[in-house]
Formats: sequence, structure tokens, C-alpha cells
Amino acid sequence: MATVPTFSDEAAGAEARAVFDDIRATRQTDFVNNFWRALAADPALLAAVWDRVKSVMAPGALDPLTKELIYVAVSATNGCSYCVHSHTAAARAKGMTDAQHGELLAVIALAHQTNALATALQVPVDPAFDRTSPD
Amino acid sequence: MATVPTFSDEAAGAEARAVFDDIRATRQTDFVNNFWRALAADPALLAAVWDRVKSVMAPGALDPLTKELIYVAVSATNGCSYCVHSHTAAARAKGMTDAQHGELLAVIALAHQTNALATALQVPVDPAFDRTSPD
Amino acid sequence: MATVPTFSDEAAGAEARAVFDDIRATRQTDFVNNFWRALAADPALLAAVWDRVKSVMAPGALDPLTKELIYVAVSATNGCSYCVHSHTAAARAKGMTDAQHGELLAVIALAHQTNALATALQVPVDPAFDRTSPD
Amino acid sequence: MATVPTFSDEAAGAEARAVFDDIRATRQTDFVNNFWRALAADPALLAAVWDRVKSVMAPGALDPLTKELIYVAVSATNGCSYCVHSHTAAARAKGMTDAQHGELLAVIALAHQTNALATALQVPVDPAFDRTSPD
Amino acid sequence: MATVPTFSDEAAGAEARAVFDDIRATRQTDFVNNFWRALAADPALLAAVWDRVKSVMAPGALDPLTKELIYVAVSATNGCSYCVHSHTAAARAKGMTDAQHGELLAVIALAHQTNALATALQVPVDPAFDRTSPD
Amino acid sequence: MATVPTFSDEAAGAEARAVFDDIRATRQTDFVNNFWRALAADPALLAAVWDRVKSVMAPGALDPLTKELIYVAVSATNGCSYCVHSHTAAARAKGMTDAQHGELLAVIALAHQTNALATALQVPVDPAFDRTSPD
Repeated sequence: MATVPTFSDEAAGAEARAVFDDIRATRQTDFVNNFWRALAADPALLAAVWDRVKSVMAPGALDPLTKELIYVAVSATNGCSYCVHSHTAAARAKGMTDAQHGELLAVIALAHQTNALATALQVPVDPAFDRTSPD
Repeated sequence: MATVPTFSDEAAGAEARAVFDDIRATRQTDFVNNFWRALAADPALLAAVWDRVKSVMAPGALDPLTKELIYVAVSATNGCSYCVHSHTAAARAKGMTDAQHGELLAVIALAHQTNALATALQVPVDPAFDRTSPD
Repeated sequence: MATVPTFSDEAAGAEARAVFDDIRATRQTDFVNNFWRALAADPALLAAVWDRVKSVMAPGALDPLTKELIYVAVSATNGCSYCVHSHTAAARAKGMTDAQHGELLAVIALAHQTNALATALQVPVDPAFDRTSPD
Repeated sequence: MATVPTFSDEAAGAEARAVFDDIRATRQTDFVNNFWRALAADPALLAAVWDRVKSVMAPGALDPLTKELIYVAVSATNGCSYCVHSHTAAARAKGMTDAQHGELLAVIALAHQTNALATALQVPVDPAFDRTSPD
Repeated sequence: MATVPTFSDEAAGAEARAVFDDIRATRQTDFVNNFWRALAADPALLAAVWDRVKSVMAPGALDPLTKELIYVAVSATNGCSYCVHSHTAAARAKGMTDAQHGELLAVIALAHQTNALATALQVPVDPAFDRTSPD
Repeated sequence: MATVPTFSDEAAGAEARAVFDDIRATRQTDFVNNFWRALAADPALLAAVWDRVKSVMAPGALDPLTKELIYVAVSATNGCSYCVHSHTAAARAKGMTDAQHGELLAVIALAHQTNALATALQVPVDPAFDRTSPD
């Protein structure tokens, strides 16, 4: 079930189809996943989101796999089922091994545990952690 | 403010103080931050949590900085103020540059944006992402 | 799957059926959705929740469609799949156009993005935003 | 800081003051905490919320301390700083011991850990857990 | 406290200062709030976020006040303290009355209540709410 | 769907199968639910998580049913579908009555409502709730 249709290439308008084509070219695959097909209901939003994904996830000061692991961590924490599935698959496609997946899960689980404790204890932030003023 | 006291070395019992000492030895610093000082109210819980942090955050299939970036991502997503401060500081201590911090923030922001869209659209998971059955 | 049964009109007790009838009369439709049918397991809770929905969602200083858009925004942020489906449908029934839906999605996505940044940066609140003291 | 003023007894209107008085009578204390003083900006909302708190938190199939522990668990999970403080204090006032507080924290931390794992793994729900159909 | 400095006009680089100037011109005020001053640590991210805020929050199929109410609802649900403060202030600046604020709070509170119930009950989505296939 | 396979007893390695056996012995049932079968992809993580569940959920200062109710409250608040199903079933197995379930739901719903209000109002914490300094 969904709150909007997922658009096939045929059902999508020209503006959305151009984004689909850029996704295919950038990722070098024919597969366009449902997230983009659902966003095609609003081509301007689709274009804005894809533009940002393409720019942010490109290699930079962090490598693409590290970025994907961060994406999985956020998605699991937000409880977004679709996103956990799609970004875990993307991490594998970018080379994540089973051992790395296991450690990713262990860090996510640990962080949730200590986050919950810090919040339940309402621990005051140590002054040493402050960076408000420029160095 | 806090829901429990933060224990100084003097106020902590022997069991908690032994954990403080192991934190100092492991991290090679004299500084023991408030999270551990608050957990000292329950020495068994303190020991169990520290034991897990020490084991999970050690070098493995993922390097320590990558693990710390994942920790920051989870903490920001959970909205844990203490954790965002302490793990951003830890990431810097492990070598995170300003450029890497900027990209970490950009990925976190992007993931929140697309997570929210996938959830608001209730996009159905593509069968290609399934791994239920062993290969 | 569910953690309680969803009660048909026949399976529901008299107290729950009276709430079903009031839902039908208020909404001028025969359709009673599963949320109410699940709550029928505890008729007192069902009545208390319906009473509050009927009162809060009535026209007031905000019009019913605006209230429904706010409801969708909260539901998507909470990651409640049922609620996203039911309140998106309710918003459509109250006149939400595709263009309004697109802008609702864009605002939700933007807010998640900037919320994540403000939290990851731990930006201090500007004194200008304070309203603690009565004017 | 706050987004509305917190009303003193003098600044509050007659309707809000009547709720303050009922809070004092019900809890047998002169202290009215800031949550109610902030809600006094909207006396109808204040009355509706207090009415529900008074009814739900009364002794029933669950005892008042158990209900308060559940309240703390939800508040910590929601990351609501005010609520963690106020309901931890309320739990203590209802008899929570330090040992019970320690176990409450351990369960909360454990639940967050396994919740995160179940979500990151997207574990399919076992049919044995389904209760959709009445027995 | 914060994890990055908040940059004054003097401390900010030319690229960030140009964004500050556009914020001032667009909002017709001299005030640039801390969110933008913190983002100035990464001028490219600052420019990308401001660009999106300017575009999404402009009048369209939804009026600016409605968009701001949706923003407050998301921010409160995400538990982002900074965002709740800044967007509640922005809503007031765009004309939100005390009565509208009271109703906004009541809808947010109600949505959280029913979201929690739908999730705890794991209510199955009614087929009537599905929009997967184009009409 | 899932991001890892769920392992049958046959597909699981010796280390994972030993944990399965301990789960069966501890719970005195033949049933091993999918959560553990998915974790079997990483036997060390499986063992660490089960070890903690076994220890934390044992009778102590809080009785096992109270701990299970707290677990349900956290799981519903985190929106973890799997966890809500499994821990509601576990609570029933430990004796939760329908009336207790109804009150659990009412407290969870109430807590979400007041949490959302405290966050949207940004109510300042009363000094009376502070426990930072040891008594």
C-alpha cells in the first residue's frame, strides 16, 4: 500500500522520466526503485531530491561506502522500513561485507542503548565538549 | 539538571572506580566524562555498558572513526543532546576533519529528508531489496 | 497482523457499537476504519479517544483541512504507517489537492532536514525566541 | 526558555486556577509544576489534559508505580527532557527505590538495543504473534 | 553549548555572508538567527539549505502560515528544541494567534496519542486507504 | 522481507545453535522467534544480545511482567513493529490480562500526549526535579 501511485516509465511525465534517465546513467543500472517512482507524482520535488542525493552521495572527504553506512544508521534509527531495505542493499552494492554489516549493526545497537541511558539520566553535557566559540 | 547525581572519584564506590580506571587506561586520558559518572549510581549497569562500548568500538571490519561517525548519526537522529556533543568530540579526537564533519552533516540531513518522504509516501519495498532467504 | 482483534459491528459490545454509530453520524459515512475497530477491545478507551478526536478536529481557529495536514505531518514524523495512510486519505476527503499534497511533502521533508541539522549542530536557542515571561 | 509563559496563580485565569486547585487536592501537595503552568495559556486544553491524567493514572488493573515506570519509559524514548525529569521524580514519590530505578534503566536500554536491531534487520513478524482475529 | 561555532558577520567568509545578506533581504529584517550562523561552518551546505528553505516556504498551493504550522508540528514531534522555538516564533511573525496556537497544540497532542495507539495495537491498514495504482 | 536471512536450526552454525538451545531451555519452549534467527547471521552479536536479555529480564527489584510492560512501552514509542508484536505476546505469556493491556495502552497514549505538549511548549524543568548533586 502507498499514499500515492508508483509511476512506471510510461505513466510518468517527461520531466520525471528525464530524472529516471539520469538515475540510470549515474548508477549505471536499468533499475529505478519505487522511491523515485512514487516521487514522480511531483516532478519538481523529484528533481530537487535527486539533485541533492546525486551531489551529497558523490565521493568527497568521506568515501561512498562510509556515507551509505551513515545513511543506514539514520534510516534504522528513524524506523523507515523502505529506507533500511534500500540503503542496506546500496551498501552491499558498494562493497559492504557481512563482517562490516555485523559491526554496523553492533554500533547502531550500542548507540541506541547509550542514547537511551543518557536521555533517561539527563546527563549534563561536559564543558569540554563545547565548541560554541571559534577556536 | 539530571535525574541522578554524577559521581566524583571520591563519591563513587570501589566497583565504579575500577571502571573509571579502565576507561582512563583504555582511552589514555585522565578525563572521565559525565555519562560514566552518572551511570556510577548502578555499578553493575556501568560495568556492563562500558564492557560493551570497549568491545564494539575497537578496531575491526570498520575503523574506529567510521564507527564514531555512525554513532554521531544515530545520536543526532535520536535527538540525544549529550550524545551528539560527546560523540562529535570523540570523532574529532579520532581525526574527523572539518570537511568530513560537513559531509557527515550533509548525509544526515539528506537521509532525514528522504526517510520522511518514504514514510509520508508509504513507498512499497522493491522485491529486489529482499534478503529473507539465505542465498 | 495486529496485537488485538479488529471488531466487526457484531463482535463489538453495545458500548463500542454506540461509538461506531456516532462516528458514522459525525462523518456521514457508513465506513468505520480499523483503528476504531481495534480500540473496541477497550470500550472506555475507545470512547475517550473518539470524544477527543471529535472535539479537537472540529472547525475552530484553524480549518479542518489545516488540522488534517498537521496530523499527517505528525504521523509521518512518528513513522506511524497506519496513521499516514488514514490521515492522508482524510486530508483528500477534506479537499487536499495533488499540488497541496506535494507542498505538504516538501515542507515535511525540509523540516526533517533542518531539524536534523539543528540537532547535530546543537545550535543554541536565540534569546529572541523566548516567551517564558508573560508579555 | 519556552514558547509560552508559565503562569503563576495570580496570572492564571479563574478556569486555570480551578485546575491548579484540583491538582493540589488530588496530589495532596501545594506544588504545581511548570507543565500545568504553561498549559494555562489555553485553559480548555489544560482542563482536558488534567482530566485525562487524573483518570488514567488512578489505581486500576495496574498499580500507580507501575504506571509511572511506563510513563518514564515512554518519556525517555521520546527524548522529552521535561517529562523524564518530572516522571522520574513522580516515580520516586510513589516509592521507586534506587534498585528499581537501576532495573528500569537497564530494561529501557535493552529495549532500545533490540528495537534498533529488529528495525535494522527488518525481521518479519512471526505468525505466532498475530492476534488479528478474535480467539 | 554547540558542536560548531556560531559565526558573526565578521567571522563568516564571503560566501556565507552573501547568504546572510539574502536571508536579510528575503525576510526584510536585520536579524540572522543562530541556525544559519552555525551552518556557516560549511558555506556550501549553508547555501544549499537556505536555497531550499527560500523555495519551499514561499507562497504556493499552501499559504506561508499553514506551512509554518506544519513545520512546528514536525519539529515538536522530532523533539528539536531549537526548531520548536524558531518556528513557533516564525508562526507568530506570520500571524498565528493565541487561539490558533492552542488548536495547533491540541492537534499535535491528539495525533501523538492516536499514533501511539495505532502503533501499540499494530492496526492493519484498511484497503480503502491504498493509492498504489494510478486512478 | 528482511535485510538478512532468518536461519533455521539447520542453516545456523554451531555457535548460533547453542544460543537457540539456551533460549529454549531458559524459556521452556521449543519456539525460537525470528529475531534470534535473523541475528544468527552474526553469532557473536547474537550471543551478546541474548546474554543481556537473559540477565536484564530475570526477576529482580522489578517483577518480570512489569519489565515486559516497560519493554512494550519503549517498543511502541520507537515504532518497532516486530518488537510491539513480540513483547505484547511475551507480556500475555507472563500473565498480562486484557484489563492490564487496556491500561497499558491508556498510559502509553497519555504519555505521548503530554510528552508532545511539553516539547511543543518547551516547558522549563522545575528545579525541584533536579538530582544532579548527591543528597
